[in-house]
Amino acid sequence: MPIVTIQITREGTEGGADAATREEKAALIKGVSQLLLDVLKKPLESTFVVIDEVETDNWGWGGLPVLDYRKKRASERAGSAG
Amino acid sequence: MPIVTIQITREGTEGGADAATREEKAALIKGVSQLLLDVLKKPLESTFVVIDEVETDNWGWGGLPVLDYRKKRASERAGSAG
Amino acid sequence: MPIVTIQITREGTEGGADAATREEKAALIKGVSQLLLDVLKKPLESTFVVIDEVETDNWGWGGLPVLDYRKKRASERAGSAG
Amino acid sequence: MPIVTIQITREGTEGGADAATREEKAALIKGVSQLLLDVLKKPLESTFVVIDEVETDNWGWGGLPVLDYRKKRASERAGSAG
Amino acid sequence: MPIVTIQITREGTEGGADAATREEKAALIKGVSQLLLDVLKKPLESTFVVIDEVETDNWGWGGLPVLDYRKKRASERAGSAG
Amino acid sequence: MPIVTIQITREGTEGGADAATREEKAALIKGVSQLLLDVLKKPLESTFVVIDEVETDNWGWGGLPVLDYRKKRASERAGSAG
Repeated sequence: MPIVTIQITREGTEGGADAATREEKAALIKGVSQLLLDVLKKPLESTFVVIDEVETDNWGWGGLPVLDYRKKRASERAGSAG
Repeated sequence: MPIVTIQITREGTEGGADAATREEKAALIKGVSQLLLDVLKKPLESTFVVIDEVETDNWGWGGLPVLDYRKKRASERAGSAG
Repeated sequence: MPIVTIQITREGTEGGADAATREEKAALIKGVSQLLLDVLKKPLESTFVVIDEVETDNWGWGGLPVLDYRKKRASERAGSAG
Repeated sequence: MPIVTIQITREGTEGGADAATREEKAALIKGVSQLLLDVLKKPLESTFVVIDEVETDNWGWGGLPVLDYRKKRASERAGSAG
Repeated sequence: MPIVTIQITREGTEGGADAATREEKAALIKGVSQLLLDVLKKPLESTFVVIDEVETDNWGWGGLPVLDYRKKRASERAGSAG
Repeated sequence: MPIVTIQITREGTEGGADAATREEKAALIKGVSQLLLDVLKKPLESTFVVIDEVETDNWGWGGLPVLDYRKKRASERAGSAG
């Protein structure tokens, strides 16, 4: 009876997409259910998966909204490489 | 001070509705708060309830997005009944 | 496929008990599963319930650990009744 | 590696706003990350924050949807003051 | 920055064990982090995993504590096979 | 009515302690409740805080149990400094 909750930011992995696609979500559901079967022998039909997409403004990292944090890290890297 | 989180798929129970209605949500809030009063003597005003509606693409069961899983089970039942 | 999470403090309702009993937990599980059947027509076997017992030191209310908050409220009431 | 989840109702604090603003969210992220650094010495970059905005219909308090509960309390206060 | 929460009952998969072993937990952590890299290109170091082990008395399914539900299902199967 | 959940690993910040102390937890509860008052005008008595302490074996980062990940990062740093 496992429950797996996957929290991700709502943003795309590809050029045009602005969120994970239905296919990507299905791959997450399939993969993690299979993992619980492989590792803990949990039957597929006893696993629930919930994907929670969080707006980037609502996700914090490093004390900042995540997009600001990424920019800061990118500029730090650019700086240290300069 | 209980906190109750109810996660459901965003879909209606009735013909036209595409999600739980305000009345259904109020019935969930009332019922579960009363349950905590009856079973654990928690006063109504000390219970918080959060209803989390999850898109069907974001809910997995049986290794599949839930709508695909329901179709699969329905066709299996139809097959075994045939 | 609802998932219901019930968070309560780990403490008893009766004289001797220091936590919710097995019977009280079973009553919560039964009651909330029935509620989802009654209100949203969710079959009993599609509902998962997780009860999360939280140490009182780990629960905050009113800016204080919950036991301290209860004492403060009780003394305020005693004061206003005096 | 702390994870902080902040659940709030989706409603504004100011006249015109109908939800927490980006600035308010950034202030929550900054403040709570700093708190974990001050109290538990957790580096800022190891703390994740997720803000979960919940529709007022989906939030229950006192056995009622939260807006109904607030109205009830306000009218009780008005009554006891009368 | 994904966060993955895996909730399982606290019970072993092998004869003697009474809970998931450290190795099984490490396999879950590795597998699900890799899955997020493969499907959504999330770097390993940006994924947090939390495994939440829940006492069997605290997990409900089918309106019953989960061990009771499993017994009921097993006896139903035995009955229908008889 | 905010609910704040703070997930941390169960380990001490000081020499002898093997977990956050009661005082540290009280400081987290006080600080985050005050933050919600300052930023969103939420009264102290309407905020619930839950601190969830997670065993280090149950926390993953970088595809590894967190203690293994910290060791790996420390040895990488030592290597790059060598």
